[in-house]
Amino acid sequence: MQKTAATLAELDTPCLVLDAARMRRNIARLKARLAPFGVRLRPHLKTPKCIEVARELMETPQGPATVSTLKEAEQFAAAGVKDILYAVCIAPHKLARAGRLRAAGVDLTLVVDSVPAAQAVAAHARATRDRIPALLQIASDGHRSGVRPADDLLVEIGRALQDGAELRGVMTHAGASYDLHGAAALAEIAEQERRAAVSSAERLRAAGLPCPVVSVGSTPTAHFARDLSGVSEVRAGVFVFFDLVQAGIGVCTPDDVALSVLASVIGHQKEKGWIITDAGWMAMSRDRGTAKQAVDQGYGMVCDAEGRPYADLIVADANQEHGVLALRRGSRAALPDLPVGALVRILPNHACATGAQHERYHVLDGGSNPVAEWRRFSGW
Amino acid sequence: MQKTAATLAELDTPCLVLDAARMRRNIARLKARLAPFGVRLRPHLKTPKCIEVARELMETPQGPATVSTLKEAEQFAAAGVKDILYAVCIAPHKLARAGRLRAAGVDLTLVVDSVPAAQAVAAHARATRDRIPALLQIASDGHRSGVRPADDLLVEIGRALQDGAELRGVMTHAGASYDLHGAAALAEIAEQERRAAVSSAERLRAAGLPCPVVSVGSTPTAHFARDLSGVSEVRAGVFVFFDLVQAGIGVCTPDDVALSVLASVIGHQKEKGWIITDAGWMAMSRDRGTAKQAVDQGYGMVCDAEGRPYADLIVADANQEHGVLALRRGSRAALPDLPVGALVRILPNHACATGAQHERYHVLDGGSNPVAEWRRFSGW
Repeated sequence: MQKTAATLAELDTPCLVLDAARMRRNIARLKARLAPFGVRLRPHLKTPKCIEVARELMETPQGPATVSTLKEAEQFAAAGVKDILYAVCIAPHKLARAGRLRAAGVDLTLVVDSVPAAQAVAAHARATRDRIPALLQIASDGHRSGVRPADDLLVEIGRALQDGAELRGVMTHAGASYDLHGAAALAEIAEQERRAAVSSAERLRAAGLPCPVVSVGSTPTAHFARDLSGVSEVRAGVFVFFDLVQAGIGVCTPDDVALSVLASVIGHQKEKGWIITDAGWMAMSRDRGTAKQAVDQGYGMVCDAEGRPYADLIVADANQEHGVLALRRGSRAALPDLPVGALVRILPNHACATGAQHERYHVLDGGSNPVAEWRRFSGW
Repeated sequence: MQKTAATLAELDTPCLVLDAARMRRNIARLKARLAPFGVRLRPHLKTPKCIEVARELMETPQGPATVSTLKEAEQFAAAGVKDILYAVCIAPHKLARAGRLRAAGVDLTLVVDSVPAAQAVAAHARATRDRIPALLQIASDGHRSGVRPADDLLVEIGRALQDGAELRGVMTHAGASYDLHGAAALAEIAEQERRAAVSSAERLRAAGLPCPVVSVGSTPTAHFARDLSGVSEVRAGVFVFFDLVQAGIGVCTPDDVALSVLASVIGHQKEKGWIITDAGWMAMSRDRGTAKQAVDQGYGMVCDAEGRPYADLIVADANQEHGVLALRRGSRAALPDLPVGALVRILPNHACATGAQHERYHVLDGGSNPVAEWRRFSGW
């Protein structure tokens, strides 16, 4: 592990730079927005995978928190987080590993959306005499997992869980919100997400089943919901850093994006208008989430080392360790003069994907020199 | 680090499985193909990033080898590799780090394609009294970096290098071969790659400059070149594992793909014909390289735990930790019955990208139980 560098120019490129001031502004914004609704924020820590960022996000050092893998649960538990929702349907052979975390004192909640999984959780609970809590995943927009609110499976799964384990509530995630744009559409899908979760909770309660937790959320819906009646907690993850996909959806602007990749210019193809850097798709990730949006940002938007965007300059193409900077098609802007060795910072399409390519954050805090290095973890 | 599991079913999913028998077959195939040409193979180790795989690939434990980052150079040097080409144009601020490897006895060769970079290398060489060798990168197909063979810059860069450093030769990479298909087109671009490198070497020699090394290569051109006269070495990387992109180009078949991601079924959306697994894009990578080919493989081709493909079953969509298996559009095959907890193995689009999402290989060697764990490294 290298020492904290005194200036960005001392860092080995490519590397990940985190603007902590922007991150804190993003966190404060969502917390302020949710405050009037009286719901808890259960931040999704799959975006940062870093304890220092988690502590900025969580209400208390013990949580609550959301994770997407048991590795995340274990890493955050080792750092003192106690209230963790593992928000991906459990595979039965992972129950022993989940059980070890619970035996160590972590209030780990699982998710199921099928009778076989509920039966496996209940059987494991009976065998280990640990009434493992689980949320029932509801499909609010049909984009991925979950049971539809009107499906009779709902009560069947709830009963299968209660046969030894604990039905703690319902959860849903409006992943389809990522394909929308603007406040009206996002408010509408947020209401659809809320209604799916609340109506499912009501059906379970009407069948005599408990349902204390009603958990909803995605970064777009969390920022645009107008009503959260009946909801007990909101999950959101990528808002902590934001990214160009979220800017394209209309949840933030590029000025809110707290994550960037520092890169060095390594060459030019002048007749083509290309500037070549050492940040290829290995550093940016292969995520091309803006390709289907109104503004395609290539593999990222290029800024100077202080974080100020160059007009119309994007990472137009990428190989493993090469990024090709070029002006957007049709742009009349001038290609900036960036000699070999010049530093640029590139805002990513998708903070979760870009972050995952790196082992640490170089943290800026109000200035343009790094003040700390925060470790990220990866794997499963 | 977990112990080597006795069976695949004991592994935590998702994880990376390497079929060492297929890997050895792939390596033997390319070595046999190149033998009659009398060229050396300088394998690109950016694909495996693993010393055990590197040793299978290299002619000797000391090399030669190609890398794409200084981290790779350092990791392989620490394991005894001495002859290393760092095949990405050097950023001047990386010269000190490169110089430390050379001071430790590694014959590290750099790459430049501009006068400023050549001047920086020469200045560093003079200052450290180390005649650093560098290859001049030639653009053989205009897809990325390099100087065109006809450009007068060629001699200018060569002379700038010789002013303290060592012009050791030329290198080129026909990256455009990835967009082609079939033997005839690949033989043609291989000849274009050869001609660009050899004619550039001849121009340098005619100007009185040395040019002992003429280095060409990519996996597709290495497998289809019909003539390598004037070439001293061939570089190729992804052939060690192969992948669905290479199968789409026509360099291999899916039966040659040595890398797969082991995943668990975690749910179903029966009315949609979806099987949900725990291998999302974090495990597969965001690489969608087959999207522009004749057969779009989604995020990968689905096989059973023994590695036998299911007819027409692909990873049709992916979220961070969710993969959605579905039949190809228009398929008449039956969706296999894969209950919650079932294991599948998924062949990746791009072995370099998928491998990079993982920390280790679980190695199969002729059977269906893992016999070893090999560590991968990442970062820069």
